Amino acid sequence: MQSEENDMVILTDRNALRAWVAQQRSSGHTLGFVPTMGALHAGHLHLVDQSRAHTDRTVVSIFVNPTQFGPGEDFDRYPRIPDQDQRLLRQGGCHALFYPDVATIYPEGFQTTVRVEPLGSDLCGRERPGHFQGVATVVTVLLNLVKADKAFFGLKDYQQFVIIRQLVRDLSMDVAIEGVPTVREEDGLAMSSRNRYLSIEDRRRATAISAGLAAARTAFMAGEREAGRLEAIARRIMVEAGIHRIQYISVRSASTLLPMKTIDSEGVILTAVKVGSTRLIDNMLLM
Amino acid sequence: MQSEENDMVILTDRNALRAWVAQQRSSGHTLGFVPTMGALHAGHLHLVDQSRAHTDRTVVSIFVNPTQFGPGEDFDRYPRIPDQDQRLLRQGGCHALFYPDVATIYPEGFQTTVRVEPLGSDLCGRERPGHFQGVATVVTVLLNLVKADKAFFGLKDYQQFVIIRQLVRDLSMDVAIEGVPTVREEDGLAMSSRNRYLSIEDRRRATAISAGLAAARTAFMAGEREAGRLEAIARRIMVEAGIHRIQYISVRSASTLLPMKTIDSEGVILTAVKVGSTRLIDNMLLM
Repeated sequence: MQSEENDMVILTDRNALRAWVAQQRSSGHTLGFVPTMGALHAGHLHLVDQSRAHTDRTVVSIFVNPTQFGPGEDFDRYPRIPDQDQRLLRQGGCHALFYPDVATIYPEGFQTTVRVEPLGSDLCGRERPGHFQGVATVVTVLLNLVKADKAFFGLKDYQQFVIIRQLVRDLSMDVAIEGVPTVREEDGLAMSSRNRYLSIEDRRRATAISAGLAAARTAFMAGEREAGRLEAIARRIMVEAGIHRIQYISVRSASTLLPMKTIDSEGVILTAVKVGSTRLIDNMLLM
Repeated sequence: MQSEENDMVILTDRNALRAWVAQQRSSGHTLGFVPTMGALHAGHLHLVDQSRAHTDRTVVSIFVNPTQFGPGEDFDRYPRIPDQDQRLLRQGGCHALFYPDVATIYPEGFQTTVRVEPLGSDLCGRERPGHFQGVATVVTVLLNLVKADKAFFGLKDYQQFVIIRQLVRDLSMDVAIEGVPTVREEDGLAMSSRNRYLSIEDRRRATAISAGLAAARTAFMAGEREAGRLEAIARRIMVEAGIHRIQYISVRSASTLLPMKTIDSEGVILTAVKVGSTRLIDNMLLM
């Protein structure tokens, strides 16, 4: 492992990235890409594992993208722990870390945005106007810079995954978008860099999010197909645990995220809640 | 020439295009790309010449893009003369014509847009809301499909050229955007597929557009640096010729299209007018 730990290169500018990518290409290596905002946890490392399993060389980017945070959101306090991130990535066998600053991604005069609508204004997009436009734009830039064969996204951010898959298809970008199942804590809470914001009390309460979704899924497995009933099952468990600020609980088509009253093809139940001052999201597939 | 005339392949779907492009790449050929809306004239053929001069294989696309036409604009009556276009492209030595239908570019569920703002809402963007969003989106799709080394755009559509150059830079797309000088009729009128809409009377009147811009450029060459005076020179010549519906005449920075009161770096004077029911644009560099 020691040699792998020493192998990771850290690239901070576009030209260095391009040169490294070209070198890998000319050596015949396939490339996998894992875009992140850092503050890495086991969920991110699982993405790295998947990339390593399916491609020859793995690039991880760490970039806390300002344009996907709204006014009053947590851009300033978003956790930034680069030394720990780099250690974890080395241990995880990442080959290259792309670690640009804001001016590298958004040089002076930058004025292009990518929007995926109506997908981007639904669900989390209602609560966070402009968020998915920021995500779609930065992911387009990063995908074009890295030119990977496959890019890996966590299904925890399910709406983000569907939006990115759609924009890659719509814009005819030449990269495969791979969704990777959510990694959870032992008590079911979906791993998230934002979990560290939670107080001990709120952390305990937050387990009701996955518990609620899991109960809905259990009912689905037992034959319940009415979206409204599944949503009510999840909601009751969250409310009973003291989670009252539920932004949405919604059963949707897993492929399009369009609403479904009755589940007649692959579905997904998604939720966003506030626990204390922390906004948390989760989802489970119904299929 | 006969053999070249026979060589042009016509590709209508994505897979055929991708396969052809991959074949050229594997043969070591560089690729040039000329996106058009058809109704080809000498200006387009000059773009093909430039592509042939600078790359090994030239792809021309013909696609009348519905999303860049506003309500009440000329999408329905935009000239479509595919047989003549194909003959001209064969004679011009084009290697591949990409000729997709609307559903090929915008399959069901398509919902991504690319915006370059504020550039896209200025000048022609004021008169044609949504136009440059349509242009930016379709050009992004086409550039990603063709994956050319160089793409060639006429400087007659100067704002379009600046917008595309900006979006390619912003989104880190790996293609060089080349601007090719405007081809003019003998009397100075910039070549345009829309010139065929003009009555004989309006066609005569339309020569005042380039005459007005040329007079402004002559004054610039003689030392005039005040934007307002240069604009007034162009305007007077157009108005005297009976062109009264002038949407704008504006001196701008040639690189950013930002307004300039006094020309202290490379400039451009741009205009859009209506002659009869036909909207015409033109510009000349001031450098």
